Order: sequence, then C-alpha cells, then structure tokens
Amino acid sequence: MAVNLSPPEAGSLRPVAGVELGVAMAAVRKPNRRDLLVMRLAPGSRVAGVFTRNRFCAAPVVLARRYLAAGRGVRALVVNTGNANAGTGDDGLQRAERVCQALAEALGCLPEQVLPFSTGVIMEPLPVERIVAGLPAALADLRADRWAAAAEAIMTTDTVPKARSARVALAAGQVTVTGIAKGAGMIRPDMATMLAFLCCDADLPEPLLRALLAEIADDSFNCITVDGDTSTNDALILAATGASGVRVQDASHPDYARLREALREVAVWLAQAIVRDGEGATKFVTVRVEGGRSRAECRSVAYAIAHSPLVKTAFFASDPNLGRILAAIGYAGIGDLDAAGVDLYIDDVQVAAQGGRHPDYREEQGVAAMRKAEFTVRAVLNRGAAAARLWTCDLSYDYVKINAEYRS
Amino acid sequence: MAVNLSPPEAGSLRPVAGVELGVAMAAVRKPNRRDLLVMRLAPGSRVAGVFTRNRFCAAPVVLARRYLAAGRGVRALVVNTGNANAGTGDDGLQRAERVCQALAEALGCLPEQVLPFSTGVIMEPLPVERIVAGLPAALADLRADRWAAAAEAIMTTDTVPKARSARVALAAGQVTVTGIAKGAGMIRPDMATMLAFLCCDADLPEPLLRALLAEIADDSFNCITVDGDTSTNDALILAATGASGVRVQDASHPDYARLREALREVAVWLAQAIVRDGEGATKFVTVRVEGGRSRAECRSVAYAIAHSPLVKTAFFASDPNLGRILAAIGYAGIGDLDAAGVDLYIDDVQVAAQGGRHPDYREEQGVAAMRKAEFTVRAVLNRGAAAARLWTCDLSYDYVKINAEYRS
Repeated sequence: MAVNLSPPEAGSLRPVAGVELGVAMAAVRKPNRRDLLVMRLAPGSRVAGVFTRNRFCAAPVVLARRYLAAGRGVRALVVNTGNANAGTGDDGLQRAERVCQALAEALGCLPEQVLPFSTGVIMEPLPVERIVAGLPAALADLRADRWAAAAEAIMTTDTVPKARSARVALAAGQVTVTGIAKGAGMIRPDMATMLAFLCCDADLPEPLLRALLAEIADDSFNCITVDGDTSTNDALILAATGASGVRVQDASHPDYARLREALREVAVWLAQAIVRDGEGATKFVTVRVEGGRSRAECRSVAYAIAHSPLVKTAFFASDPNLGRILAAIGYAGIGDLDAAGVDLYIDDVQVAAQGGRHPDYREEQGVAAMRKAEFTVRAVLNRGAAAARLWTCDLSYDYVKINAEYRS
Repeated sequence: MAVNLSPPEAGSLRPVAGVELGVAMAAVRKPNRRDLLVMRLAPGSRVAGVFTRNRFCAAPVVLARRYLAAGRGVRALVVNTGNANAGTGDDGLQRAERVCQALAEALGCLPEQVLPFSTGVIMEPLPVERIVAGLPAALADLRADRWAAAAEAIMTTDTVPKARSARVALAAGQVTVTGIAKGAGMIRPDMATMLAFLCCDADLPEPLLRALLAEIADDSFNCITVDGDTSTNDALILAATGASGVRVQDASHPDYARLREALREVAVWLAQAIVRDGEGATKFVTVRVEGGRSRAECRSVAYAIAHSPLVKTAFFASDPNLGRILAAIGYAGIGDLDAAGVDLYIDDVQVAAQGGRHPDYREEQGVAAMRKAEFTVRAVLNRGAAAARLWTCDLSYDYVKINAEYRS
C-alpha cells in the first residue's frame, strides 16, 4: 500500500529524443512477466553514473563502473529483474560480460559500450542464456514512447511503477527529462536494489554531466532511507543524448540552473516515490534538521531519527513519542550537542523547546499531526546555520511480515 | 517470552558484606508495586560508574556523575522505576537533588554521598513527594538478603528479574560478587534504561575500581544491542565495600585476574539476560567477527549485522538469508574490505566462502542452525588478527506490537 503514489498517467511521460526503450519476457526468474529492458542511446550520448558503496557490490555494478571509466561512450543499457547477479564472484562477472557482448553484437557496438544492471534474488547464477534469448524481442520492441513499459519491467517488489517527466524551455530550445526508478528492494537485498535511470536530450559535456549527477543525487536519492540497509546493486544513471541540440557548456551558462532544476525535480519525485512504496510503509515522513554547524552533522541527526526502530514504530502508531525522537538526536554522534538548545516540531506544532516538552504543547496536537499520511519532523539544533532533510517511512507489522516471510 | 532465562533460584543470590537493600511501594506511576529501592553501602565503600553517552541524558545521570566526581564517597544508591526524570531540564535536576537530600538526612550523610537513578516514562515531572514519602518504608526494609526483591523493584518492561552472584576464593580470603540489572527498556526509551548495579566486598582502591569497571563494561554491557537505540538513562555501577577485608591493591596483584573474572562473569550473565529479555525477542544471537585489522572495525561489522532490520527479521524467520548478512558486512564502513575474502558461518555450518555461497552449503543446514533459540553468526574477514563479539536478538512482530501500541 504505497503512500499517495499512483502509476504515471497516460501521456504524462515524454519521449526523450535519442532514447529508445524495448522490453521483453526473458523468464529470468518467473515466466510471463516483462523482466528485460534495453535502452538504446543515440551515438554521441554522454552518460554518468553513481553506484552503491557496499563492498559486496554486484557483478553488474563492477562492470558498469569499469565500462564507464573506459570512456568509450555508452550506446545501450540492459536491465534484468529476477536475479541480482550479486555475491556471484568471477563467474557472475563473466555472465554479465556475456550479456553485454550479446547486446553489443546485435547493436554493432563494443561490449564496453553496453552497461549492465541486475536486480532480484542474490547469490544465484544469472541465467545468461535466457536473457540473451530475450534480447531480440526487446530490440524489436525499441520505441521512444515505451517509458511506462520500461518502468514496469524494472519492478521487483515495487507495488507501483515509478516514472516522471519534466520539460524546461531554455534560451536555445526545449529540453525534455524523463526518468524511471525502482525501489522497495533497497530494503530487501534478496530482491536487491534501487535502480534509477534519468535521460535528457540536452547536449552536455561529460564533466558537467558528472557534476550535475552528483549534485542531483545528493538532493534526491541520497536523501532517502527506509531501513538503512544499503543494497549491493544500487545504481543511478544520468544520460544526455544531445539530440535536442540544446547545449549547456558549463555551470556558468545562464540556462544551467534551470536545467538542473528540471533534472532535480524528476529525481526528487522518483526518490520520494521509492519511499512512498517502501515495504510496509503507511506513512511518508520528511525529517528536517536545522541550525546545525554543518550539513554533515544535520544529516547524522536526521539519519538517527529516520533509522531508529523506536521512532519508526511510533510513526506507525501515530504516537507523538517525543522521548524517542529526542533520544535519537542525543545519540546521533554530536559530542558537544547542548540538549537544552534543541527545539522539535511535528509539522507546525512545536512539541519540544529547549530540550524538553513545550509548555503549551498538548498531546492531541501531536497525535493529530502524526495521524496524517504525510508529515514533517523538524529538529532545530540552534548551534549553527546548516540544515539537511531526508525522507523516510514508518516501520509496520507488514515490514516484518514481508521480510520475515519472504523466502518461506 | 524471554529466551532461556529464568528468575534467580531461591538461595542463589549471595549477600555482599557491607551492602543492605530495602524496597518499598512509592506509587511513582502505579500503586501497589514495589518501585523504590535503597542500597546502603558501608562506610569506606568505593564506587565507580559508567553512564549513557546520549546527549539527552537524564537528570539523575547528570547528578550521579557530578556526585561521583565530587569524590566524597558514596553511602547509598536510590533507584525508582515508573519515571525516568529525563527531558525534564533544571526542574528535573532539582527534583533529583531533593530525593538525595531526603535520603541523606535519614542516613546522616551528605546529599553528595547519595547517587540517584530513575527509569520509567520520560518527560514527566518526577513525583518527589511520593518518593520521599516512600523512603522510610524502604529504610525499614534494609537487609543484606534482599537482592531478589531489589531485582524485582527495578524492573520496568522486563518480564524476568535479573540477578546473579559469584564467589571467588582469593589468597587473602573469599570475595562475593552480586549484581542486578534491568533492561528491555533500553529499547523502549519511554520506559527508559538499562540499569545495572554490581557489588562486591573486596577492598579495592578507586583507580583500580574504575579500571576494572571499564574493562568489565567493555566485555559485557557494551557488547549488547537490541535495536541500537541508546537510552537517556543507562548506568552501570560497581561498588566495592571492602567488608571482606580482602584487599587487591593493583592490577599486578596475583589475585587481580581471578577477581576480575568473577566480576566479568556476573556482568556478562546480566548483560546477556537483558538481550534474552529484549522486547519481542525469540532468538538469542551471538555475532562474532574475526580476522579484522582492529577490534574497532570488527565491532563495526558486528553492529552492522546486529542492527540490520533485514538481518533481524531473517533471524526471526529462521531464514539463513546470506545476502542480507553479507550486504550488512559490505556497508559496515570498511572502505578497503575485500568482499572476496569474507567467510561466514552459522554455528559450525560454513555458509559462505570467499564472499560467495560455499559450494557444499545446503540451505537445510542453515535453517537447522537458525531454528535453534540460540546460535552464533561468525564472519571471518581474513585481513588481520583482531576480533569482536556481541549479543543481540531478533526483530519480531511483537517488537513492533510492543513499541507501536505501548502508549495507546
């Protein structure tokens, strides 16, 4: 039961010039579902990626990183669900290579120009033959308007496909941004992974693309947490085809800020969609920490709140349990935090002042605020000017049910 | 439903010469339960303490730290349940002081010679009058053989009272160690706190006592985690009355190691008892990490495993979900960890070798090992000679139920 999240409306997803998508049924894990996606990029497209920092990163992550670093350009992405090809060692690497080779042959490009992505069960051999056998159908399906089908094809335990478009009019012309993402699995490493693919048709030099991606990721996908478990396969890809002919040369270009904003808007929407569709989620909660000395310390406090099982169960229960939130702030690792300086709000209700219950606060106010499907927890540290925010969900019976019973 | 934990057997708890205990009903939060404990220590007793590092530490923690630092000696401890006196600001400090003053007057000592401890609901004013009114009954109850009653009087959400004794024959005579603890609340900050009080009748200089306590805490109470939430009130106290006349002057004394071992045995038993009685616990799990470069990195990995909600739900389901454990190792913060060097065992079953599934491993073996109420997860990093271990429990429906429904 996703929190305020619906599938993309028909017609809301805009094709991105220079990007074609095709899906197929490859029976990777189960028959009769679309589990294979090919994204073909026009020649000259530029691609940047950020990947999981988990030391147990999956074979496709190793390979995609290596191919991107080789710098031969990217002509296609290939994504399978049903099998994460993680914890599979050298054999897993070879299997991922074989998928790239097969697609490269079909497209007439180098294997290093194909980036592989996998999500699904881990520690099981990738069924290369079935994936390769599925490629012709995916290639036959390639079209510019298959974004909705692509969003569905990369789902694992997601209950809602996640896709979003934006358009922005720049001085030199219009640029289209469309992205898809899958999550849920971020909190279920069996069905490992958050994957997100953002494409635009602007013409961007690679250093600028990489800088843009880092900035956008920091504001979106790096601001979400369901249960703090970092998957082995997380990947976020930003591709710029240049097919619109609209060039933004560097960050000093007058259109840079508007382009970044369009990309950011799509990335934030997709990142939030992953939390809204988190396993067992019944609440979508924004955690905002202000008045810190640095963004890093604000993020530490926000994560401590968002990861505390006690706070998360209180969210689930609509229980304005201030002690749990204050205690989480207290153990977030700020050694010289003055507890007597901390204020706390739930939406507009000030629940704590100077480290203790606000004298005017009545519990009914807190309950009313937390009963909503979406609310903001705002902690003010009163020791500096930095701030940070992230998005999370609650911890419900269904989270335990889904994760305890999944394999049984 | 505590895991393999029973109340102390009659006669198993040994009086400690120089320590008297008295309990009373003060109706701190609810009538008709023993919720007040006074421990009187013989003159000349020496006391050391370690306390929560949470920056939102409770008023009694602030005061106990201050009084210990004042160095006037300790004549009594006073403990109430039902109210944690946390998040209560200056008013909370004054209330804790008034309790100490009242007990000091009754005992004919200084207020600074009385250490206060509180556990229970937080952010509510401590009912000083009721506690002070209860002191005479607790004092009238003072006896050397009231350890079992004391263990019960400090319980909050604990389902089993926790107390343990040990005796050790040293060259100069016999020393008795007895301790009590309460937990459960560590993972329920409303009912905040782990409290543990260890007493012995050895004669120990204060610097030695402090060193002993740090060593013991590191091996016992600092090795447990239920959900990673550090409470506002945690305290561990070690008192040495000297009443046995058995003196251990310093760490080079031939009896030092045996005394330390007796104290450690009691502390470990009490610490484990807290995990066995963790909220909703159905499994008692030892996490052992070996072959690290430092104890610190082994502890990081052990905590990552023990805190992962995915791993904990897999424990609950008796599901040998290797991917979740390996993923937790991978995000534990060792930047140069070679995933291909990691071996993993559940009890004696090797489930993973060189970062992937062990070729001979069959899932039935893992399920059989994890079905037991107690088992060990052992990760071998193969990059050094350091090791660490801790104890934790699973994450069950009851954890969510207890913490989501507690206040409703």
